[in-house]
Amino acid sequence: MSTKNRGIPIVVSAPSGCGKDTILAELFKINDNLAYSVSATTRAIREGEIDGVSYHFHTRESFEKMIADGEVLEYTEYCGNYYGTPKKAVLDMLDEGKDVILKIEVEGAMNIKKIFPECVMIFILPPSIGELDRRLRKRGTETEETISARIAQARNELLFADKFDFLVVNGDLAKAVSDVNTVILSEKMASQRNLQLLEEIKNS
Amino acid sequence: MSTKNRGIPIVVSAPSGCGKDTILAELFKINDNLAYSVSATTRAIREGEIDGVSYHFHTRESFEKMIADGEVLEYTEYCGNYYGTPKKAVLDMLDEGKDVILKIEVEGAMNIKKIFPECVMIFILPPSIGELDRRLRKRGTETEETISARIAQARNELLFADKFDFLVVNGDLAKAVSDVNTVILSEKMASQRNLQLLEEIKNS
Repeated sequence: MSTKNRGIPIVVSAPSGCGKDTILAELFKINDNLAYSVSATTRAIREGEIDGVSYHFHTRESFEKMIADGEVLEYTEYCGNYYGTPKKAVLDMLDEGKDVILKIEVEGAMNIKKIFPECVMIFILPPSIGELDRRLRKRGTETEETISARIAQARNELLFADKFDFLVVNGDLAKAVSDVNTVILSEKMASQRNLQLLEEIKNS
Repeated sequence: MSTKNRGIPIVVSAPSGCGKDTILAELFKINDNLAYSVSATTRAIREGEIDGVSYHFHTRESFEKMIADGEVLEYTEYCGNYYGTPKKAVLDMLDEGKDVILKIEVEGAMNIKKIFPECVMIFILPPSIGELDRRLRKRGTETEETISARIAQARNELLFADKFDFLVVNGDLAKAVSDVNTVILSEKMASQRNLQLLEEIKNS
């Protein structure tokens, strides 16, 4: 039924270390109706990142001009940098019928229902805090202090999880990818997203 | 996550001829967490039907006693006969964590949200009224008059479709079965059905 309808904005949020990026990369391989909203940020570009792919990198001045011009759907300031969602690209993709993945920080996600009442909000959970701790350590790149800070932040972000529509536990990656896709495919069938189709069948 | 939770009441309704029974039979083959609520009725048993499997067959008197005793979740009168959902069996299966399929007439389904605010309501649609007409004729058992009456009834029932949570078109049987199952699996992940799991992860 997807071809008849506007795409769905899909918010995917998770505490750091929950495997959100890996899940999304796999998700795009199995669902060809997805599009990705590249966020804008003022933080410095990191090695391996590509402007326009990883993020749209902006100066503080140009980011603030985008805000003033109403060109960002939502933005937050996080660790001294702006992060936001460029508006036009998202609306264009939705109009084309694409389901648009919006990767938004947990607290920033709280505002998105005001902009897109029809959005689907998915929260990725770690199987346990202990497992999250193990995963952060396994990276081998973080100091003890950073790990403690991330765990504390994860605990804080978990307080918002029940404000999301769906919870997906990332215990097994393949299961988590399938679960996120199941939610998206199910939401495509929501009656309120198919009123035009319903009218067509009624009048057939 | 299903083992931690109470089961979900799943209402499946459809106009006659939309293939609801075939979809449900296939669905039970691929989803082993489902249970089926056998309806009670006062209509006469038909050839091939089994009491307690097809329906619980009752006399008018015993059905009315069940109503008086608060033993039916909902009931409707349809073509001069009562049809209803026995209460205890459904509640027991939900407590065991089973997702319970409630096959309820379209209009009767309108009352079920009052009883089960957490229920998921799925409406099965024909691809078109023309196709529904073809399917009813294909049975070869119905008179022209019956077919006309069923089509008129289907048109009336379609007026309620937007009151359901999800719409599944039965164009291709395998697709329709998969679609219904997708909705059920997705709803298992709804955050409001997983608050206990969330608490466990928060406190882990």
